[in-house]
Amino acid sequence: MLAHAGQDVRFLMRADLDTVRRDGMVIFTKGTEVRLPRVHCVRTTAEIGPVDLVIISVKATANRELERLLPPLIGEGTALLTLQNGLGNEAFLSERWGAERVMGALCFVCINRTAPGVIRHLDHGTISIGEFQQPVSDRARAVAGAFNAVDVEAHAVDDLGGERWRKLLWNIPFNGLSIAAGANVAEVLADAGLRSLARSLMDEVLDAARRLGHGIPDSFADWQIARSDSMGPYRPSSMIDFEMGHPVEVEAIWGEPLRQGLVAGARMPKLELLHGIIRHVTERRARGVPF
Amino acid sequence: MLAHAGQDVRFLMRADLDTVRRDGMVIFTKGTEVRLPRVHCVRTTAEIGPVDLVIISVKATANRELERLLPPLIGEGTALLTLQNGLGNEAFLSERWGAERVMGALCFVCINRTAPGVIRHLDHGTISIGEFQQPVSDRARAVAGAFNAVDVEAHAVDDLGGERWRKLLWNIPFNGLSIAAGANVAEVLADAGLRSLARSLMDEVLDAARRLGHGIPDSFADWQIARSDSMGPYRPSSMIDFEMGHPVEVEAIWGEPLRQGLVAGARMPKLELLHGIIRHVTERRARGVPF
Repeated sequence: MLAHAGQDVRFLMRADLDTVRRDGMVIFTKGTEVRLPRVHCVRTTAEIGPVDLVIISVKATANRELERLLPPLIGEGTALLTLQNGLGNEAFLSERWGAERVMGALCFVCINRTAPGVIRHLDHGTISIGEFQQPVSDRARAVAGAFNAVDVEAHAVDDLGGERWRKLLWNIPFNGLSIAAGANVAEVLADAGLRSLARSLMDEVLDAARRLGHGIPDSFADWQIARSDSMGPYRPSSMIDFEMGHPVEVEAIWGEPLRQGLVAGARMPKLELLHGIIRHVTERRARGVPF
Repeated sequence: MLAHAGQDVRFLMRADLDTVRRDGMVIFTKGTEVRLPRVHCVRTTAEIGPVDLVIISVKATANRELERLLPPLIGEGTALLTLQNGLGNEAFLSERWGAERVMGALCFVCINRTAPGVIRHLDHGTISIGEFQQPVSDRARAVAGAFNAVDVEAHAVDDLGGERWRKLLWNIPFNGLSIAAGANVAEVLADAGLRSLARSLMDEVLDAARRLGHGIPDSFADWQIARSDSMGPYRPSSMIDFEMGHPVEVEAIWGEPLRQGLVAGARMPKLELLHGIIRHVTERRARGVPF
């Protein structure tokens, strides 16, 4: 949307590069098609060079590749904004390029990339943008404002860590059951047993988040369930990754929240089992063993 | 083994009938082949008529069919011995044909039927035989003795309910993870995470069994894990049923123990999640939805 509005956005692409160079990109959003016939896309970050803002949207499983990808992009004052799921991504960036560069964002949206250059924005929501372990900043507000100016809902937040746990409250049960039970969002919610288990996984996550200083009310979990009822048969990104044989963000979404919650004294028996099953089946899949 | 020794055993068969009539049966056990070139096998229980002892080895999912199958077999003094897995089978028989007829047995063995008429006895163990809600009887001892006489390990027990929970202690984690994680016994035990989860599922089962009056020591769970280390890549029957698209004994193995444990005040969060996942994926499979 930024590129469509004329901002200077440069896309690093791998598998999609040739298709997008030839055909451009298309975003299906809010009942309309947004077409970008020409996109500035490249294969290496050296072709991009230093920028004001790096928007990081690789899977957390590819974080080690950032050690090679990011240096050409970083100049004086370059900020890093990770849109990735799960816990540990800002810490990863801070350790390597300094906490002062690092912002994070949570995307409370349903978006699937359904083919090279084809983005489907299925359910609307906001992007919460914040500083790593700092209160809200002018920089975070400026980025949220830039998104708002191109019709993308976003806002700056004080407690980025809390936002991460709010997103995990959804990702842990719904991405988790999408792999462990092969059920999309509508299928989880239509099965009284899985619906109840999704809600009790949320209780475990709420307890961990509160012990870690992020006060999320029970009503937020109830609202997440109610909001999910309107999503229809949405397939969480982890489900698509798993079925396509792509890496799944197992440690960012389930492993690291489990470890942090246990250290903080939370009991998370359902998450322990869910994590163990997902780790096993994704590792099998990675080794090419048929399920 | 009873038939091979010359006892009058009549087999009710469905899918295997034609093959076994033509080729007989073969049992691979303890390094030897036991061949039964001619087996007395029939398609209906009317062809069998009243017997001394009915050995029930249909899946618990087929219990409703027993209402049609059993009456021709029952005469005065006929005893019913269920070798089925899980909870609820003796109660089902008692309600219909009287508790005084009913015995149950737990088979602590690894046996797969790998083709029509072909039985592979992979790991050795005992069969525990007892009365339904009664102490050990001469009848139970006589059946155990008949098995022993044909080289099948068996013994009569006082607390059949406790034996059921001892068997569930293994079936709940290992049959459960074989479906939820697609892992055979060796694969569960080789994955440190799943191995630990199998043991903590056992803790939930131990707690429920104790609250229901069956005092099983922790050391029995440890021994079950150690014994399983010698099983190799054994595929629990539920795993084979699931992969073949056959009904899985979801309520007998996971649902009923969960309900009885919760009523007795046990907390079984891992079993709740495991049961919910297994129920969902088996129902999907039954509807022909690919996983």
